[in-house]
Amino acid sequence: MNENDYSTTHVAPQVPEPTPEEERELNAMYDRMEQLHLKPLWRQIGNLMPNHPEPDAVAHRWDWEELYSIAQRSGELVPVGRGGERRALGLANPGLGGPTYIAPTLWAAIQYLAPGENAPEHRHSQNAFRFVIEGEGVWTVVNGDAVPMRRGDFLLTPGWAYHGHHNIATEPMAWLDGLDIPFARQMDTGFFEYGTERLTDESTPEHSRSERLWAHPGLRPVAYPGARAASPIGRYAWEFTDRALSEQLALEDAGFPGVVSPGHAAIRFTNPTTGSDVMPTIRAEFHRLRPDAVTKTLHEVGNRVFQVFEGSATAFIGEKTFELKRGDVVNVPSWKPWHIAAGSEGADLFCFSDHPIFEKLDLNRTFNPEGI
Amino acid sequence: MNENDYSTTHVAPQVPEPTPEEERELNAMYDRMEQLHLKPLWRQIGNLMPNHPEPDAVAHRWDWEELYSIAQRSGELVPVGRGGERRALGLANPGLGGPTYIAPTLWAAIQYLAPGENAPEHRHSQNAFRFVIEGEGVWTVVNGDAVPMRRGDFLLTPGWAYHGHHNIATEPMAWLDGLDIPFARQMDTGFFEYGTERLTDESTPEHSRSERLWAHPGLRPVAYPGARAASPIGRYAWEFTDRALSEQLALEDAGFPGVVSPGHAAIRFTNPTTGSDVMPTIRAEFHRLRPDAVTKTLHEVGNRVFQVFEGSATAFIGEKTFELKRGDVVNVPSWKPWHIAAGSEGADLFCFSDHPIFEKLDLNRTFNPEGI
Amino acid sequence: MNENDYSTTHVAPQVPEPTPEEERELNAMYDRMEQLHLKPLWRQIGNLMPNHPEPDAVAHRWDWEELYSIAQRSGELVPVGRGGERRALGLANPGLGGPTYIAPTLWAAIQYLAPGENAPEHRHSQNAFRFVIEGEGVWTVVNGDAVPMRRGDFLLTPGWAYHGHHNIATEPMAWLDGLDIPFARQMDTGFFEYGTERLTDESTPEHSRSERLWAHPGLRPVAYPGARAASPIGRYAWEFTDRALSEQLALEDAGFPGVVSPGHAAIRFTNPTTGSDVMPTIRAEFHRLRPDAVTKTLHEVGNRVFQVFEGSATAFIGEKTFELKRGDVVNVPSWKPWHIAAGSEGADLFCFSDHPIFEKLDLNRTFNPEGI
Amino acid sequence: MNENDYSTTHVAPQVPEPTPEEERELNAMYDRMEQLHLKPLWRQIGNLMPNHPEPDAVAHRWDWEELYSIAQRSGELVPVGRGGERRALGLANPGLGGPTYIAPTLWAAIQYLAPGENAPEHRHSQNAFRFVIEGEGVWTVVNGDAVPMRRGDFLLTPGWAYHGHHNIATEPMAWLDGLDIPFARQMDTGFFEYGTERLTDESTPEHSRSERLWAHPGLRPVAYPGARAASPIGRYAWEFTDRALSEQLALEDAGFPGVVSPGHAAIRFTNPTTGSDVMPTIRAEFHRLRPDAVTKTLHEVGNRVFQVFEGSATAFIGEKTFELKRGDVVNVPSWKPWHIAAGSEGADLFCFSDHPIFEKLDLNRTFNPEGI
Repeated sequence: MNENDYSTTHVAPQVPEPTPEEERELNAMYDRMEQLHLKPLWRQIGNLMPNHPEPDAVAHRWDWEELYSIAQRSGELVPVGRGGERRALGLANPGLGGPTYIAPTLWAAIQYLAPGENAPEHRHSQNAFRFVIEGEGVWTVVNGDAVPMRRGDFLLTPGWAYHGHHNIATEPMAWLDGLDIPFARQMDTGFFEYGTERLTDESTPEHSRSERLWAHPGLRPVAYPGARAASPIGRYAWEFTDRALSEQLALEDAGFPGVVSPGHAAIRFTNPTTGSDVMPTIRAEFHRLRPDAVTKTLHEVGNRVFQVFEGSATAFIGEKTFELKRGDVVNVPSWKPWHIAAGSEGADLFCFSDHPIFEKLDLNRTFNPEGI
Repeated sequence: MNENDYSTTHVAPQVPEPTPEEERELNAMYDRMEQLHLKPLWRQIGNLMPNHPEPDAVAHRWDWEELYSIAQRSGELVPVGRGGERRALGLANPGLGGPTYIAPTLWAAIQYLAPGENAPEHRHSQNAFRFVIEGEGVWTVVNGDAVPMRRGDFLLTPGWAYHGHHNIATEPMAWLDGLDIPFARQMDTGFFEYGTERLTDESTPEHSRSERLWAHPGLRPVAYPGARAASPIGRYAWEFTDRALSEQLALEDAGFPGVVSPGHAAIRFTNPTTGSDVMPTIRAEFHRLRPDAVTKTLHEVGNRVFQVFEGSATAFIGEKTFELKRGDVVNVPSWKPWHIAAGSEGADLFCFSDHPIFEKLDLNRTFNPEGI
Repeated sequence: MNENDYSTTHVAPQVPEPTPEEERELNAMYDRMEQLHLKPLWRQIGNLMPNHPEPDAVAHRWDWEELYSIAQRSGELVPVGRGGERRALGLANPGLGGPTYIAPTLWAAIQYLAPGENAPEHRHSQNAFRFVIEGEGVWTVVNGDAVPMRRGDFLLTPGWAYHGHHNIATEPMAWLDGLDIPFARQMDTGFFEYGTERLTDESTPEHSRSERLWAHPGLRPVAYPGARAASPIGRYAWEFTDRALSEQLALEDAGFPGVVSPGHAAIRFTNPTTGSDVMPTIRAEFHRLRPDAVTKTLHEVGNRVFQVFEGSATAFIGEKTFELKRGDVVNVPSWKPWHIAAGSEGADLFCFSDHPIFEKLDLNRTFNPEGI
Repeated sequence: MNENDYSTTHVAPQVPEPTPEEERELNAMYDRMEQLHLKPLWRQIGNLMPNHPEPDAVAHRWDWEELYSIAQRSGELVPVGRGGERRALGLANPGLGGPTYIAPTLWAAIQYLAPGENAPEHRHSQNAFRFVIEGEGVWTVVNGDAVPMRRGDFLLTPGWAYHGHHNIATEPMAWLDGLDIPFARQMDTGFFEYGTERLTDESTPEHSRSERLWAHPGLRPVAYPGARAASPIGRYAWEFTDRALSEQLALEDAGFPGVVSPGHAAIRFTNPTTGSDVMPTIRAEFHRLRPDAVTKTLHEVGNRVFQVFEGSATAFIGEKTFELKRGDVVNVPSWKPWHIAAGSEGADLFCFSDHPIFEKLDLNRTFNPEGI
């Protein structure tokens, strides 16, 4: 950012051209300010306080085939283990420079685990989830609970839960990781601790204990009353997500409400102890578009990331257009208008966002230019 | 209540015996107070403010066979229709005198619908649920949504939702109704309106639309964000309740937590938009006891009603003991210590209570004399 | 209530006149039901579920001069002390029969303490407040904090706080007590314990410690974060109430918003840790009407009690009209339309209600027939 | 940040030294990743996920005399008006590089207004407050309400409220501004709009209308029920802050609780509609230390900024020690242990922080190494 660059929507201060003498005095003053660690607002306000969010982050699409192939290559060249902790490739927003942020708040990565590999246990205050685009054979162990990972599953590792993974299959497995690492790093909130090198539970059950206790519709164990900051459900199995979306479209076919807009079904993954988002900083949803259906256009404060689970779509984000096929990842920066049009076979889209942060802080704002 | 009866825990005021003259003056004063619609606290306090809740309601057991047989008889003699509205037999607590209250807050009734019968639509601000002890073939239509009723199902009709029922089977059907009618009546909060004579939807779908939209574990439709006062799930199908309870016991077998106490599994029916109770005034739970398992003893502010769904049990409530078999109903008045011991085949128990009222008003209190 | 009385708004069940034989069978059935502690809904519904609240409580006015004079008389004839606990004259709603309820939820009483008298300490789960209509010289000691009582002050004794009073003045003192005794009694939630006979603090400070810690506008002690069920402010001093009301009227004079309606200023006493009502079950407000100002007409679920603090007014409640002068008390039963017109010198009115109970349970409803 | 720098608390990955051939392959892979906008976690984790917050921000002290003198100089050389908007000197944390952030979330600035000057109206979604270290004669107009500014006052401009200032005195005036500009900028949430050039209300009342309506202890206008995101009190007058702090110390002298720790009184400015913080992102407090009193040592997630209002103190922050006199500003970065020791005349300290952000997101953590 150039300090003297005013964003187009701010007017330049109406100051008469200084004389050379005034110029010298001003410069002396600005030098003195710099020594004192002071900066004048009047030379920055357009950048600091734009008329609407002007994110440095840009919309970008990552191609799944390329992601998968380079993840595979890293599986050949780089071992996974203590220190590096995870074989995860972070999707780095081209507009955000150095660190691996897909958005100012969010981290997204492809994690890859070869057959027989083991990612040692650790914990961190950062909230994490995994979404499985394909494969099976990995169990993630969260606070001692072995959770199977299969295509379509959405899995939680809320902040400060110990977790590790192992792949017991004969095939490698790759999935999407989402965390609030950038938020924690920029806001200085993160804590991290190593756990055991070996997993604390090497069993491979069909369902996690968290599902057996908590994943029943509208039912909760009497032994655990009260609200929790994060969902106790470790695995949102694909079977239920798929069914909920199908039902919305079937209700639409029968003339009843339930979908977000015509041809656009969507569910939000929630914390059953509160009915709100799965974790304090991250929202996760699954969207299903009928063939050729188009979502409403939205401007929203905050960031979304989509991954195509099935089918194909075209994403329109600000001025950009992205063709998306299975596995591709695309992000929507804050306040950029976006809509998605499904291809001829329809589209299933996993989505996560940082919207809960801004809703809790009363900073959220949504605008639909089509007027709804 | 005798105004001059002091409860055993209150001391009598230490007042010297009045002289006859004083007696006359006192009587004159008390007469005058009565004319002015005044009553002196010092002659009432033991009754008005006992040391702990001393409910007029008593623990009582209603025998299912008797209930069912008289309900059947009423089916022969009394038509159902507009005016009487429902063929419901209210369980009247023997301690509460005239009106049909099973507790100061709660109404419980057996409702009976003969083949082909139709209970016309109406709505009321009173919250209502139904629990099906046996049979099938009735659909309840709630705000235009046809909801099937089958053994083990728990069904909601939150306050101000239009509802009616019809029986399309060749068999009569009976179920348990629970409402907060006594609370509404005593607190003067109730509103009531007639709806249509015929049901607004005579279809007989396998699942209600409310289930299709909302009864998916940890998932909610994106189209309906926000908290609601009452659960949007119209039917909590037995299949899920049964599975959740079985899983708790299986987890206990495997050495993991989840049950309330040894051999005692329990789930609470919840509002998925908040994680709390299904309706603002009524809590509903389902308890499963292993053979010979015994619940912890509790004193609780508020009232519980149990119905045996399967198996048999002995309920110990205050000084009383009740043998319970399938279908029997028993109530626990406020603060009476209670525990339940399952019979040799175990026991499945539906339970509802008014505890949410007292939790919201910070009046709840629980005491376990065994010290946990 | 006559069980066979249908409220005017319910239709009578459309049942053909029974034959003598049918009549016998019906009677046999109803007898059997009575033995089984069952009551048929169809013979009660109009009473149990009226179209709108039809309270047994009636609107009534108590005359302050009469109240005060009989309170004085009781001061001569009846000592205050352990057992009777308080020299309090409960205002008994003429519609509510035996016990001392001004409303189904609320107790209101005049309490009288002669010079040098002492009301011993006790505590109860019932929430209590006092409002001082005249006089000074009594300190109420709440959990060891000596709280002065002076004309216009509103004082809290939230549930389970130990409290006693003593009068150190040379004059007797009388005030209005408000509690949720009827709610606790009918709902079986009440607990009671004796404390010390002598007050735990006999000092007579100008301000209570609770005021010194908590009664600063918009400020709270950092040492006590978090929400509390009841307000920590023991005394809402008249000085602040008066000023807040005057400011609302001054703002109205200057053309700015703030009053409830033209000429009608009102403040609500609140819990500074939450911004909501002072206690979980009781709302308290103070209303000031300009000369000849008239409040809007309201139907409300729940009960209000007014006491005239200064000036005079006419209260219109349902079909009734009451002339009110200083000290007079009047109640508004649930759903009865009411408005109040100030006399020529205006009116200052203290008001308390049970509205928080019904708001928390989603049972509140308000209707303004003038159409705001 | 060097991507290959592991923080001292992370172990380096235990990878065997690659052969030259492997080295080439790795480099090719890393080059390819860069092209694809991917970064491997294993080369970053120590920086991205340190064991505890390792803020880039450093603790720094700004000297009031220097601040004031350069502000004065800018008053001579730079006009205030549309475009630059405010004559505000932002305190730029030496550890945070380019933009003017005192913390990752917070902006702090000295604003200076010469006699007769006028800062035009605008509004922004960023939350703002002002704290007046000395002087009087400025009115800030917030949504049309003219609010006086005097020494010790704490003033609010919640997000999206129009506001401007004018100085009607014959002296210049300077004060401390605090905003969440950095949070809004980094999180892309900010909106900004110009208002009128001239103030919408040029009156100079003794009290703002917001104070007249809302600044009464424990009282709120009945006309405005419900919770608000930000406090409706525009001005927290010094008189009340001072009194509340004095009372805490007087209670301590008398042996009663109320202070944070011995000799350390503190109040939090709150939103009277909720009892919580004045604005969704910013906490503000005032601390008073007796002569030579020392606060407890704390590690806290989040950032604090202190300004000395009166007296002198020594701040111990991490490894650093700062001598503070009247007007000096010092910041505490996240998780740096801090305590403050008052000088011989005691110290009055204004304090603001971003703690509400992290409390709402369940990311707050506090640690007192002294074990309390």
